[in-house]
Amino acid sequence: MTGRPILPLTIDRRRTASLQDQLYSSLREQIQTGQMAPGSVLPSSRDLATDLGISRNTVIAAYDRLTGEGYLETRERSGIFVNPEFGRPKPAARRTPLKPRHRIAIADASTALREPQPFRLCQPDVRLFPLALWNRLRSRALRRLGHRLLHYQSAYALGLPVLRQALAEYLGESRGVRCDWTQVVITSGSQEALYLLSQILLKPGQSVLMEDPGYPGAKAAFLRAGAVLQSLPVDEHGAIPPSDVDGVSLIYTTPSRQFPTGASLPVTRRMALIEFARKNKAWLIEDDYDSEFRYSRPPLPAMHSLDAGQRTLYIGSMSKVLFPSLRIGYMVVPQSLLPAIEELRLTLNDHGPLIDQVTLADFLQSGAFYTHIRRCRKAYEARLDTLLTAVARHSLPLTFPHTDGGMNQAGYFVDTRINAIRISARLKEAGFDIPALDVYAQQPVAAGLVFGFTAFDPRTIARAVADAAVIIRDGI
Amino acid sequence: MTGRPILPLTIDRRRTASLQDQLYSSLREQIQTGQMAPGSVLPSSRDLATDLGISRNTVIAAYDRLTGEGYLETRERSGIFVNPEFGRPKPAARRTPLKPRHRIAIADASTALREPQPFRLCQPDVRLFPLALWNRLRSRALRRLGHRLLHYQSAYALGLPVLRQALAEYLGESRGVRCDWTQVVITSGSQEALYLLSQILLKPGQSVLMEDPGYPGAKAAFLRAGAVLQSLPVDEHGAIPPSDVDGVSLIYTTPSRQFPTGASLPVTRRMALIEFARKNKAWLIEDDYDSEFRYSRPPLPAMHSLDAGQRTLYIGSMSKVLFPSLRIGYMVVPQSLLPAIEELRLTLNDHGPLIDQVTLADFLQSGAFYTHIRRCRKAYEARLDTLLTAVARHSLPLTFPHTDGGMNQAGYFVDTRINAIRISARLKEAGFDIPALDVYAQQPVAAGLVFGFTAFDPRTIARAVADAAVIIRDGI
Repeated sequence: MTGRPILPLTIDRRRTASLQDQLYSSLREQIQTGQMAPGSVLPSSRDLATDLGISRNTVIAAYDRLTGEGYLETRERSGIFVNPEFGRPKPAARRTPLKPRHRIAIADASTALREPQPFRLCQPDVRLFPLALWNRLRSRALRRLGHRLLHYQSAYALGLPVLRQALAEYLGESRGVRCDWTQVVITSGSQEALYLLSQILLKPGQSVLMEDPGYPGAKAAFLRAGAVLQSLPVDEHGAIPPSDVDGVSLIYTTPSRQFPTGASLPVTRRMALIEFARKNKAWLIEDDYDSEFRYSRPPLPAMHSLDAGQRTLYIGSMSKVLFPSLRIGYMVVPQSLLPAIEELRLTLNDHGPLIDQVTLADFLQSGAFYTHIRRCRKAYEARLDTLLTAVARHSLPLTFPHTDGGMNQAGYFVDTRINAIRISARLKEAGFDIPALDVYAQQPVAAGLVFGFTAFDPRTIARAVADAAVIIRDGI
Repeated sequence: MTGRPILPLTIDRRRTASLQDQLYSSLREQIQTGQMAPGSVLPSSRDLATDLGISRNTVIAAYDRLTGEGYLETRERSGIFVNPEFGRPKPAARRTPLKPRHRIAIADASTALREPQPFRLCQPDVRLFPLALWNRLRSRALRRLGHRLLHYQSAYALGLPVLRQALAEYLGESRGVRCDWTQVVITSGSQEALYLLSQILLKPGQSVLMEDPGYPGAKAAFLRAGAVLQSLPVDEHGAIPPSDVDGVSLIYTTPSRQFPTGASLPVTRRMALIEFARKNKAWLIEDDYDSEFRYSRPPLPAMHSLDAGQRTLYIGSMSKVLFPSLRIGYMVVPQSLLPAIEELRLTLNDHGPLIDQVTLADFLQSGAFYTHIRRCRKAYEARLDTLLTAVARHSLPLTFPHTDGGMNQAGYFVDTRINAIRISARLKEAGFDIPALDVYAQQPVAAGLVFGFTAFDPRTIARAVADAAVIIRDGI
């Protein structure tokens, strides 16, 4: 008995796939696309073998496999049929040609990877990073620990102990943060720390006091958790401790260097914020994103070091001091929060990449970390000088009140009626990334532009200021 | 005028810190700890310089810095005082000695990194991974792309195009998944894919139909999103398509190899699940966690390939086919979901580590990926033989119905009244990681134990079965 011919079946002896695989695929394709209708009968294995000029065993093997997988069914003495339960085939949809977008070939990966435009904020100069040394440490760690580094290590969802210990030491020495190493949690960048804390500390509808102007990444994390944001006003000294705000669950601050204004919060205000948090039983986030880069003098110790009540949650980042695509950040939290963080971390993504964590621990312990920070600090200080000199040379009507450190500089227009948003938009059209202060603010804010200067060499800075100055003066 | 003596100030000429820094730190410490009371007067710079035998300029510089930071304040013609607003000092708390836990030195990192115990589930044998080749590809990528790979690349929160393209090709060829590369999203392990999908697709109180027994990582992600879980019963063929369930928002399945039973879902059931999802306007997750490891024949194409309605969300992992600590997974989703996923990803952790993504793209394109899978498949097939032979040799009363593939094997007790939980607990005491089927189930389930066999060489498997057999027979 010969069924409805199912040719053309694409069988090609030159292809590397076995004849059985080719026959299997062809039949499956025809069943899936509805070219062979549900319930229709197939040719006998003998007939099909003859038709195709292949061995009968090949056909039997392909039929067996399709039967095992439910595409075909055998009825005793009647032959082999396409499974009638197979359901409605959807040839049109499956046949819809894909509309591939412009394909970027592997060789073009470099063009896909963006360089920051002047004066993009918070960009370290990754060319200063000792990548060769980092790679040597990585290789050494792999030689030493080998395949142990490749396993799942869900026991370390909070980070590898060696790295947590190395960071606890660094934070104690450099930032005055006193903590047990178990309080240090490794995250995928400081953004993940903000996300984790928001999720475990905030319930929908709860109130977060957020520096205004303030860091958009923190806002996004709080809003995602359903929080209601209240403005914590910022003046030339940083966040103004509130006196009469009720029902606050969390306060977000950047005491070392207010983002984006650059103010360094005086100790008295830090104490007042801690006291406010204590009274309101609120948590206090200290986002210490770039304290390493203070030029004229060492940074103030972290606000965390002033808080005996363990309400301050300290967040730091390796994105700025090493390189951003490493995606390592950390936080220091009371031990009481660790179980909730660990549970969420396991549900979220288990643990971070381990090879990088061991490499970073070695980088810290070797002292190379400190050498690198010093090198960057020196370079960035010179670039800040270049920026300010260029601004002065081109007589830009901007004042920069916080030039003692940081990776960014907020420049305020002398004429406060200037529309900084419009100027920023024009700069963007010309290839500059110089945001207006307004984009970080909920409440009205002074007219100003924010310049990140750390990723660009002095010559680029000088030239970019010259070019941007034309547009800025034009827009005033 | 000389104030209250503030000695002992620790000034030590042998230390590397400058005298000014030492004086500054000592004073700050005394202010912070309350040893110097708020409002108290300090010695004049001249007096203190004489007392300490250091230059007056050094004292003035330290005083200036402390004044600038708000610790001290200068009152004209009265002298220098500790800032009275400084608030209550908390000497007790700050002085509490830390209780460091047992410190694991860097050299001991290897002991902290755990090897999986027999027969832990879903563990690839990372010793088979071509780490040297991987490292060469990584170095080559760094040479080619250099510091461009180190920047922030927030434009690629969904993953680097090169990797998404390479994966789209792989999934098309090997799994029958037809998609545009833009539909492929890179995640930090498949767990993050489950988390992201849960968060964007589920509202609290919505219903998820979850394979029972089923994968705990998926359950955790759904519960975290506030979903209500309903059991999707599983028999020897895998998930049983439901007929009379209403109000389901999402269905979770492992069609290639049901976790943890190992059943491969027949095509007709796949079609029925897709049809159920279509009728209920529900999403259908296909978690394809180990389809690469099917030994007797190639795996069925993904359920995704049967779904014209774009309700199937395909999830895959590199943890099983490469190595777990890499933390790379992926998903294939309709383009309509991309904006929500991207927004959450940016709020969550911006983007994944980029060097690994480029390296993986090259690993896929070079063909080494396929070679590695073939190598693992061969090794794992032999290990499965070893496991089954050893089980037979030791006459364990367990039957293994799904021995055609997978990384794990569910063995069912012939006597269904046996308490598998108790036996599993005894095995755990003896150093074995062999869970009872019950731990994955909501509804009562057949008495059985699940063995992961892929991470252990044949000799270890044979010995471990011999040792475990004594405990199992003892517990029956």
